Amino acid sequence: MQAKAVGLYQGLPISDPASFQDIKVEVAQPQGRDLLVEVLATAVNPIDTKQRQGQVATSDPRILGFDAVGKVLAVGDRVTSIMTDDLVYYAGAVDRPGSDAQYQLVDERLVALAPKNWSVAQTAGLPLTTLTAWEALFEKLPLKAEKQANLGKTVLIVNGAGGVGSIAIQLAKWAGLTVITTTGKPATTAWVKQLGADVVLDYHDDLAKQLQAAGYDSVDHAIILHSTDLYLPLVAPLVRPLGTIVAVVTNQQPLPMDLLKPKSLNFAWEFMFTKANYQLTAMATQGMILARVAELVDQGVLQPTTKRVLEGINATNLKKAHAVVESGQMLGKLVLTAPFDAANN
Amino acid sequence: MQAKAVGLYQGLPISDPASFQDIKVEVAQPQGRDLLVEVLATAVNPIDTKQRQGQVATSDPRILGFDAVGKVLAVGDRVTSIMTDDLVYYAGAVDRPGSDAQYQLVDERLVALAPKNWSVAQTAGLPLTTLTAWEALFEKLPLKAEKQANLGKTVLIVNGAGGVGSIAIQLAKWAGLTVITTTGKPATTAWVKQLGADVVLDYHDDLAKQLQAAGYDSVDHAIILHSTDLYLPLVAPLVRPLGTIVAVVTNQQPLPMDLLKPKSLNFAWEFMFTKANYQLTAMATQGMILARVAELVDQGVLQPTTKRVLEGINATNLKKAHAVVESGQMLGKLVLTAPFDAANN
Repeated sequence: MQAKAVGLYQGLPISDPASFQDIKVEVAQPQGRDLLVEVLATAVNPIDTKQRQGQVATSDPRILGFDAVGKVLAVGDRVTSIMTDDLVYYAGAVDRPGSDAQYQLVDERLVALAPKNWSVAQTAGLPLTTLTAWEALFEKLPLKAEKQANLGKTVLIVNGAGGVGSIAIQLAKWAGLTVITTTGKPATTAWVKQLGADVVLDYHDDLAKQLQAAGYDSVDHAIILHSTDLYLPLVAPLVRPLGTIVAVVTNQQPLPMDLLKPKSLNFAWEFMFTKANYQLTAMATQGMILARVAELVDQGVLQPTTKRVLEGINATNLKKAHAVVESGQMLGKLVLTAPFDAANN
Repeated sequence: MQAKAVGLYQGLPISDPASFQDIKVEVAQPQGRDLLVEVLATAVNPIDTKQRQGQVATSDPRILGFDAVGKVLAVGDRVTSIMTDDLVYYAGAVDRPGSDAQYQLVDERLVALAPKNWSVAQTAGLPLTTLTAWEALFEKLPLKAEKQANLGKTVLIVNGAGGVGSIAIQLAKWAGLTVITTTGKPATTAWVKQLGADVVLDYHDDLAKQLQAAGYDSVDHAIILHSTDLYLPLVAPLVRPLGTIVAVVTNQQPLPMDLLKPKSLNFAWEFMFTKANYQLTAMATQGMILARVAELVDQGVLQPTTKRVLEGINATNLKKAHAVVESGQMLGKLVLTAPFDAANN
């Protein structure tokens, strides 16, 4: 069957009219553990802009989009956990066609039922950032993924107002951590405080001095959500001996890891797509994490991080969305909702 | 009271007659949690040669030596776990006078009773390397410190024939791991096989090809005990997604950490002196580790790694020992035994 999608044929500047194009693609019936999903909303993340920029010329268009809420239309013969007509949410896999499309195939292990009480626009802001934040906090850091289970422990979250930061702050507070974060202007400071941050440092000024002024000699662990090159040398002195630093942004230059040696620090990469890319058994943990997060949403523990919604999934709106995300100024998440190919706004 | 020691006044080449000097020092009575120990044997580790080379000129002589077996002569008023006349072993702290001395003060938390059945020369080869290997395997890697508790898991130990490698192989085998290690010549290969290594790779040749030829696509984790600069890029491709690489040798250049990102690998520094340098509560784990290792020795689980013994702790023998360790060709451990200031050999 034929379906609409937004595709790209090569990595062009987002200002180029051809950077994204409305296309038609053939949709296959789901096999094995795949679900066929009708996409109702999708979000744009920094990885979309990086993948777009790096796309080599291709005659088969590439379809991006790694956050979706949608309705299950059909299931493969080995699917056990999801049924037709379920409303699901997921980030999916970076090496398969994404959610900037009317219909998408996704492995059931990466999927959970969507929260009951949020709009699709609110829910579409969750999967990629929530999986990243959850894995960073509870798989990469030695912290427990339970309510109030980490009282007395501190975590520094560099760049708390972005997509991952906005959900990481909330998950960390739920888990009982003291959250110290960085922002650069009043609007983002207000936002991270609303999300629960205990201490907010201005990234323009000396972090160590501000931390000390706030009454902390060090933090137990840190999560760097902005330039790893810039922040690793700034964050290493702030983490207590034997602590762990998690990073999500690929370094552009080799890193001065010797700074971490005297304190026997640990450094961990969090890349949400590792599990699916390598088809690890641990893939199934992503569906489980999203199921637990849906519970937290339904219990009223989490507040939405979606801050802007464009109605209509199409090339025009996707270009707008990429331009905003690319600027690095986005607070929380930006979501595109169905109808597919609606009038632009 | 006055005692003999071997001291240095500045970092000189080991061929310089003044690189180490026989000196006399004042010995204080133990306070608080300190023990006063009569040193019966000490070992020379790579950290001794690095500390010697980097020593700035000082009028108060520096005393190195971070491995000792000795008899407790007196205890501080807050000591609870050790008594006068106990035979103890320990690595001690790098920021206090070391064990190249007739008497030494050491915090009881870093100390355990020596194994019963080994000679002091055999036991003196243990503490620093064993603490490093144990912490790397069971604190930095997600492995259990119990007999046969990690069956089916693989660890790559780069440079298995050196001091840390020689004990790491044995501890890993006790814990049930499959051990893959690297060597460069027949003598070291025979040695690591005697210690229990399952697969030995020649570091002169392509590690990935040899690993594959041995029937392994990847290893679960790796411990790099030689140049981190050289081996990190070679080891990263061999470790399975979500695995951990531990390193013990400070990098000389910034490291290409981006190589570890696609697989979301973890990187951990193991520096044995972190706990004592920062006076962490975790200091006490070092005494506990040595107590468990003494049990393993007494149960016949471990074989000695001491491969060479010089009788007499004095400047002449210490120069010989540093020259050997500095050459990087040492198999296992080199130990100096009392009597203090005996005839050279």
